[in-house]
Amino acid sequence: MTKQQLFEQITQKNSYLCVGLDTDIKKIPSHLLKEKDPIFEFNRQIIDATAKFAVAYKPNIAFYEALGAKGWESLQRTIEYIPKECFTIADAKRGDIGNTSGLYARTFFDKSSSGLDFDSVTVAPYMGSDSVMPFLEFEGKWVILLALTSNAGGDDFQNLQVHNTQSSVHSPQSSVQSLQQPITSKQYSINSLYEQVILTSQKWADCERMMYVVGATRADKLLKIRELAPEYFLLVPGVGAQGGSLEEVSKNGMNKQCGLLVNSSRAIIYASSGEDFAQVAAKIAKKVQQEMEKYMEIYL
Amino acid sequence: MTKQQLFEQITQKNSYLCVGLDTDIKKIPSHLLKEKDPIFEFNRQIIDATAKFAVAYKPNIAFYEALGAKGWESLQRTIEYIPKECFTIADAKRGDIGNTSGLYARTFFDKSSSGLDFDSVTVAPYMGSDSVMPFLEFEGKWVILLALTSNAGGDDFQNLQVHNTQSSVHSPQSSVQSLQQPITSKQYSINSLYEQVILTSQKWADCERMMYVVGATRADKLLKIRELAPEYFLLVPGVGAQGGSLEEVSKNGMNKQCGLLVNSSRAIIYASSGEDFAQVAAKIAKKVQQEMEKYMEIYL
Repeated sequence: MTKQQLFEQITQKNSYLCVGLDTDIKKIPSHLLKEKDPIFEFNRQIIDATAKFAVAYKPNIAFYEALGAKGWESLQRTIEYIPKECFTIADAKRGDIGNTSGLYARTFFDKSSSGLDFDSVTVAPYMGSDSVMPFLEFEGKWVILLALTSNAGGDDFQNLQVHNTQSSVHSPQSSVQSLQQPITSKQYSINSLYEQVILTSQKWADCERMMYVVGATRADKLLKIRELAPEYFLLVPGVGAQGGSLEEVSKNGMNKQCGLLVNSSRAIIYASSGEDFAQVAAKIAKKVQQEMEKYMEIYL
Repeated sequence: MTKQQLFEQITQKNSYLCVGLDTDIKKIPSHLLKEKDPIFEFNRQIIDATAKFAVAYKPNIAFYEALGAKGWESLQRTIEYIPKECFTIADAKRGDIGNTSGLYARTFFDKSSSGLDFDSVTVAPYMGSDSVMPFLEFEGKWVILLALTSNAGGDDFQNLQVHNTQSSVHSPQSSVQSLQQPITSKQYSINSLYEQVILTSQKWADCERMMYVVGATRADKLLKIRELAPEYFLLVPGVGAQGGSLEEVSKNGMNKQCGLLVNSSRAIIYASSGEDFAQVAAKIAKKVQQEMEKYMEIYL
């Protein structure tokens, strides 16, 4: 899916909601446990109920892996079921040396190998460029790189002040639509680690192939992040159960092509634990979508 | 497995070799493709051939995931087959917010959930403490944290100079056997990021529960790393195909309980692509073991 196609879907649905499919066999309504594949059945009903209000789905791969081969099959059924217009994110936080990252790319992007055909995968930046590039070899697929995460432990390293001695001028690979200007290192000679990740990684891929993860609990940092990466989409988890504010995220983070995918997992999919779980999920998703529509009118 | 048990196995076998099971369906000898589970059959023969010379096995999870549910089943058979005295490493480079890392821990440590029962898992540090702690809730299981990786891209961030403003004195949780002294921040007020990762993470777990990944291609840094973490085991990939020197790693990195697991994957498992692949793998593994025995006599 291209950036333009994603933006068109956002304007059609008046929504930038991503529904996180953190589907836990221990948390889904008990009446589903009699189904042959309860995890898929839960996802199917959630997708049917929320697809009008959501532009993206993000299965959290840990929840499927934890069930072994069976979980992998549920994931495969789920990704096949998600409507084709929706953007799909394998929230996997992968990253390894080149030949291994190449295998992870095959896992999430190459249907003929693994049965999976995601649009994007989340990647951890610690191992650097050659751990990320193999994912970009799959045409039309996206890398979503961790920058500033929503959890408390994110502060252990992501906010460390680092000396940038690596490059004097930062010049991002610009796409046809890019309006970005080179950023001088003088301006950003000492950065937080997460800022340095954003600056360095823009050399690896432009805003047509890469996004960044920025936690909603870090909404105050979004203005600075928008200076560094004005045109990149940001995947923003942490609204809902983790306490981030949708209004603040939208105000500080939205750009001319929206530039935001705001994820909500638990607050939507586990809004009810009864037989009405899908209807209640739809109700919450609709409420979030309506709030987003309001912010799009103000900030887009 | 305890650190003491691992050390005993090392002294019994006169080896600190870890065999990496980077088993690629596209690279295994063609005569195995007629087997019901070629990946497992390859691993089974490699394990049979090398278990006398190796103290650990490290399946690279990407290679199994890339085959979807089927790959997961091969992985399960493999982990069940590895002799119980050998230390097992899920080379998965995981790490996510707390509840998700908890699921990844279930994946690799909780046989009743996923069918897998590894001794340890490799974890990326970028998301900090609460992304690592859930793995430590499984008694007797280990976290192997990425510190300084063997790939060229490791330089993008791991060698950045960071200001340590987080703690004035570093005081690792010491085990009964620990001889570590507190390290003053004055001594290490500006560190490389990977050094800061080693310093900060020692607060999370002692050397009985945590190891660090240090690439063999960075053997010159091992003396400094041994100052920072004298008693922790180091998992050292990058000898063999990636060009690291076993002698230099052993000289700079060995401590009184060996403290090293040196991994070799491709150089052993793909030493021959013919029907004799297992015999040739055994020959190479034996040669590495004999070299290790020599270094243990000199440096242990």
